[in-house]
Amino acid sequence: MSGKIMAINAGSSSLKFQLFAQPDERVICQGLIERIGMQDAVFTLRAGEQKWQQTLPIKDCREAALHLLNALVAHRILGSLAEICGVGHRVAHGGEAFSDSVVITQQVLEKIEQLGALAPLHNPVNAQAIRVFQQALPDAQAVAVFDTAFHQTLSDVHYLYPLPWRYYADLGIRRYGFHGTSHKYVSSLCAQRLGRPLESLRMISCHLGNGSSICAIHQGRSVNTSMGFTPQAGLMMGTRSGDIDPSILPYIQQTEGKSAQEINQLINNQSGLLGVSGISHDYRDVEQAAASGNPQAQLALKLFAERIRAVIGSYIVQLGGIDVLIFTGGIGENARNARQQICHQLGFLGIELDEEKNNTNQPFIQRAGSAVQIAVVNTNEELMIARDVVRVALNDPQPQPA
Amino acid sequence: MSGKIMAINAGSSSLKFQLFAQPDERVICQGLIERIGMQDAVFTLRAGEQKWQQTLPIKDCREAALHLLNALVAHRILGSLAEICGVGHRVAHGGEAFSDSVVITQQVLEKIEQLGALAPLHNPVNAQAIRVFQQALPDAQAVAVFDTAFHQTLSDVHYLYPLPWRYYADLGIRRYGFHGTSHKYVSSLCAQRLGRPLESLRMISCHLGNGSSICAIHQGRSVNTSMGFTPQAGLMMGTRSGDIDPSILPYIQQTEGKSAQEINQLINNQSGLLGVSGISHDYRDVEQAAASGNPQAQLALKLFAERIRAVIGSYIVQLGGIDVLIFTGGIGENARNARQQICHQLGFLGIELDEEKNNTNQPFIQRAGSAVQIAVVNTNEELMIARDVVRVALNDPQPQPA
Repeated sequence: MSGKIMAINAGSSSLKFQLFAQPDERVICQGLIERIGMQDAVFTLRAGEQKWQQTLPIKDCREAALHLLNALVAHRILGSLAEICGVGHRVAHGGEAFSDSVVITQQVLEKIEQLGALAPLHNPVNAQAIRVFQQALPDAQAVAVFDTAFHQTLSDVHYLYPLPWRYYADLGIRRYGFHGTSHKYVSSLCAQRLGRPLESLRMISCHLGNGSSICAIHQGRSVNTSMGFTPQAGLMMGTRSGDIDPSILPYIQQTEGKSAQEINQLINNQSGLLGVSGISHDYRDVEQAAASGNPQAQLALKLFAERIRAVIGSYIVQLGGIDVLIFTGGIGENARNARQQICHQLGFLGIELDEEKNNTNQPFIQRAGSAVQIAVVNTNEELMIARDVVRVALNDPQPQPA
Repeated sequence: MSGKIMAINAGSSSLKFQLFAQPDERVICQGLIERIGMQDAVFTLRAGEQKWQQTLPIKDCREAALHLLNALVAHRILGSLAEICGVGHRVAHGGEAFSDSVVITQQVLEKIEQLGALAPLHNPVNAQAIRVFQQALPDAQAVAVFDTAFHQTLSDVHYLYPLPWRYYADLGIRRYGFHGTSHKYVSSLCAQRLGRPLESLRMISCHLGNGSSICAIHQGRSVNTSMGFTPQAGLMMGTRSGDIDPSILPYIQQTEGKSAQEINQLINNQSGLLGVSGISHDYRDVEQAAASGNPQAQLALKLFAERIRAVIGSYIVQLGGIDVLIFTGGIGENARNARQQICHQLGFLGIELDEEKNNTNQPFIQRAGSAVQIAVVNTNEELMIARDVVRVALNDPQPQPA
């Protein structure tokens, strides 16, 4: 199979893309359209050493997609659009309907739209992007890759909340988890680097970025994850509080006369590293402020690490031990201090960091003789999406939703 | 010191009491007034083998207290009320003002009332009971024993939430924790039974009852606990959800048009064992339904245990290991199946249950050779309250609020 595969990640006002050559998985080009809907949208395209950037009015997702596709031919990145044989779309929410990536049929597209009830900011935009690319590239196979699918292997005891039953049965309120594509990619790559079968490993994967989540992986399957019904749950993040005493919400609402929407905004956009430090949602900024002695910034970093440690502890109990601890995502891959704080004094669990390897971001950063392997893996969701297009659409042309 | 000490636990419509002889800590009598405010309030009093029960109209806390005190003399339990030399009051919330029990002064009483902002259902009632008993027993020393005080030793990284800073600074939103009197009592008693100094032990205390919480105790000091800003947080309980993805609350509010108060009611009174099982808030009822094959009841029990295991795992990471695991509270002291599920396959952490000892509720239920001691301790908050009266008021007459 020698066609080109496009990976698409559509947001409410942005469109990220990456084009891969097959079978060697070489990145042909990648880029981003930002500020969609504005007069001054920004289109950035990189191919090898070349970079183009353009500011222009872009009305909507359709215009953005057409602009991108035209640019590929105009800049001679492609001879013709017919070279694109597959398009993989990152879709935020697959609910309980999708436990793997699928070829997009009319039925699948309708289901993605229905699941907009669970992801109102994301699924409708994803569905729109799918339609636009289907029209523009009618001969390419389209595949949906769900951020939730990897976690559909959780057992009921790990996905159910202790709420009245009807909230699960009628409203679908349960833990779905997100970042599935990343956790699946890094766990699989890490097993490969170790030369050990995934089926033999108990892994804990920490995807730490502006959004952060941890996944407990047993024999290659997700058995628990820290995000929940929404991506706000679990760890402290850039602007998200993660788990807090739920009763705090009605308390603040009543004390400050806030609406449900305002409280949602508060815990999603004003909390986390930003809320505690008062400095920034960006870990690097907070680290810098902490280094210059800002006490709230110092506390924010400690809080961030401590909450990760707590989840790691709970997953070690669930897994009955741990073989591999993985760090990925912008913070996980780069913030050596974060990794050091997270692994601090966990030798009694077999987790022993080698400071020098950690300081130089080596692929494996455990001490010689450490029972647990500690891996730093660069995640690559776009590549995983492209691979899933090949796996489910091009090698096996008739897969079905789960 | 040979006077009698009364321990008082006042609720919104009930008054529990227990009278101790000093210095031998013998229970002279104990009882309960329920349905205060109704025409058919019920007064129950037990002294040794004797029991009295009476249904009568009781208007308020004042009438209840006077009725109780008169009955003590009328039934010749006391020769005169002057024999009561100390009264200990359980007070729900001590905020950051009280890190230990204190002799109640006018200033202390005012502070307890101010802290009603954090515990509107409890502190005002506690303050009222304090005034009533002060009037009725003007010569007895009155002591406030706070449910939160034991947890004031938590460090900021364990009591702060990742919310905008002003919610801590201005509204006092932080983890306070509850059940402090119980966790302190059982940890201290357990160290004594082991013949080892508290200062040498890393303990995890599971108080499992209709309300449930876990406490991590290092060198006799609380270093973390699962209840938070409110007693709704943490574990799954009889009717409380415990921790869930906080974003579920605004989602349900918006989907079902619920007010902040209704959502509070939902997660506090309709969730937990009751919500999942659909059967009862009472662990024994749910256990019975599970035994007869009810799948939701079976799941409720699994969920209950799994969430306790997760917290134990996180505290083991925090403590850097564990020496003693304690079970207390109605469920912790009696539900052998719960203890068995909680300790399942934790041998790799040194936690090994002896099935026979567990089945017969022995004081220590670990296997011979288990690295971790597993204790079953009957909690006794009333005795702890009485002891605190002696410690802070009668042996040392001028203690101050922290």
